[in-house]
Amino acid sequence: MAVYTEISDADLAAFLADYDIGEVVACKGIAEGVENSNFLLSTTVGTYILTIYEKRVRSEDLPYFLNLMEHLAARGVRCPTPIRGTDGETLHELNGKPAAIVSFLQGLCVKRVQPHHCRSLGGALARMHLAGQDFPMYRPNDLSVDGWPALLDAVGERADEVAPGLYAELRDELAELQSAWPRGLPEGVIHADLFPDNVFFRGDEVSGFIDFYFACNDLFAYDLAVCLNAWCFEPDDAFNATKARALLSAYGEVRPFQPGEVEALPVLARGSALRFLLTRLYDWLNHPPDAYVAPKDPREYIHKLRFHRGVRGPGAYGVT
Amino acid sequence: MAVYTEISDADLAAFLADYDIGEVVACKGIAEGVENSNFLLSTTVGTYILTIYEKRVRSEDLPYFLNLMEHLAARGVRCPTPIRGTDGETLHELNGKPAAIVSFLQGLCVKRVQPHHCRSLGGALARMHLAGQDFPMYRPNDLSVDGWPALLDAVGERADEVAPGLYAELRDELAELQSAWPRGLPEGVIHADLFPDNVFFRGDEVSGFIDFYFACNDLFAYDLAVCLNAWCFEPDDAFNATKARALLSAYGEVRPFQPGEVEALPVLARGSALRFLLTRLYDWLNHPPDAYVAPKDPREYIHKLRFHRGVRGPGAYGVT
Repeated sequence: MAVYTEISDADLAAFLADYDIGEVVACKGIAEGVENSNFLLSTTVGTYILTIYEKRVRSEDLPYFLNLMEHLAARGVRCPTPIRGTDGETLHELNGKPAAIVSFLQGLCVKRVQPHHCRSLGGALARMHLAGQDFPMYRPNDLSVDGWPALLDAVGERADEVAPGLYAELRDELAELQSAWPRGLPEGVIHADLFPDNVFFRGDEVSGFIDFYFACNDLFAYDLAVCLNAWCFEPDDAFNATKARALLSAYGEVRPFQPGEVEALPVLARGSALRFLLTRLYDWLNHPPDAYVAPKDPREYIHKLRFHRGVRGPGAYGVT
Repeated sequence: MAVYTEISDADLAAFLADYDIGEVVACKGIAEGVENSNFLLSTTVGTYILTIYEKRVRSEDLPYFLNLMEHLAARGVRCPTPIRGTDGETLHELNGKPAAIVSFLQGLCVKRVQPHHCRSLGGALARMHLAGQDFPMYRPNDLSVDGWPALLDAVGERADEVAPGLYAELRDELAELQSAWPRGLPEGVIHADLFPDNVFFRGDEVSGFIDFYFACNDLFAYDLAVCLNAWCFEPDDAFNATKARALLSAYGEVRPFQPGEVEALPVLARGSALRFLLTRLYDWLNHPPDAYVAPKDPREYIHKLRFHRGVRGPGAYGVT
């Protein structure tokens, strides 16, 4: 929830001169996405989202993200579709920063997740995985197991400021995950950040995914592990196996699980919990005091990590 | 630039059940207005702004603001128009807070003000003043000369943290303004906060005013004094008399100045500068360290106050 860059009307007019989307009638900074500045742009032709990429997104990754959205949209996955400028390019520059215009997606985020939302999410996620199978670009997941040692080092012993003994716990966890991390399972393009903020619904059905700026190539089942953490815990930290079963079974109906995928879920869910715990810890310990964005409480993910560590198998998630 | 309240989809649906504006298709928090939470609400029928009133707006004042917008819109002044619910009321409740839906106004704020913007602003402001003349409600200007002693007390000697000697300077200024403040000039409904953020343009012409939450009954010329401060200084603090003349002459062509109004402008501009300086000082000295909203630098208004104090007459503003 942040707007970092202010756009002058003159800069906006110059930027839009490279597009064929009519005259601008309104442009409002919106509280969406913590990594970039987003504006809802109304023109005489339609409504769009204008995104200015701030420094946390690496500009060399932008073609992957934009091409992926275009690829998925062309295959019927509802997601923001980059608009090409008159030069044929989707990536331009505004205020000296990379910027793009994408289509406006209708829908609302769900604040109180119900099992039927998880069911719709599971099917939509599987369809996205299938639609991405012939996407030709490759981007590794910087925030998976190979990236965690550096993240843990960056957090360091200050982790104990959040919970006593946490640093030692995370070192042990990391060592276990490094040796237990599954290899050879089906992989492809994953969203990797599919929190409820990034999924739109109309009525009970998913109407689209947004915010592909962590998308990468990794295990499909890891995307499900992210969703288990982001969608299947209650506000009091209790795990809701009904939601997990709804998510996983709906997924499996569209993209049947391959051998080993379901069995890997507990380890992947631990890994996903560690990934969000580490980045939240880092942001919590390092956010400037005058930051516009309140960092998210990392402790939520300590509970989630410990839950998955205590799980005996995928039966805890309602599947076998 | 702030969104304070998050709305759940269920709360939003319940809220909209009291309106006849179709089904919601999107709702995005927008970075507009520092006092309230604003959402751009798209429905199957149209686009609206949903405002949740946070604690800085007194709820007993809300009928004045909402009725005023409706009154002005009915007289052709382009401004957000409150939408009545099925109960006939414009003011409802969401998340336990007062909330209203208003029409969506097209236009862009100007970031780099040019004299022609000031000219269009002057005419539009005069038309707003005329349109408000038969508005039957009354709200005093709490932030005019009678309110400044309490504001200055609330800031106190900590003003000197911003500029050495400032507290004594402001006490003297206040005493002078109290004795020199004009009485008996034409008055009516004024906007009282007509900064460039609150004025939309399409092309070179004003397309509407927003954010009426400081509107009150006071001297018409005081609204012009606010605009002199907000529109006619350059980023380097230099006063631009060309812009001032454009503003004032265009205003006078629509609502001719009455005797004493132009002569009062220097004192009113000092007063307006003191008003924004005092509230900015207070916010600067008292904002919580984790505030989402970065307070505005009060020093800009020290320069403006001193400029007007050095003025010999309204000729400095390009009028006589």
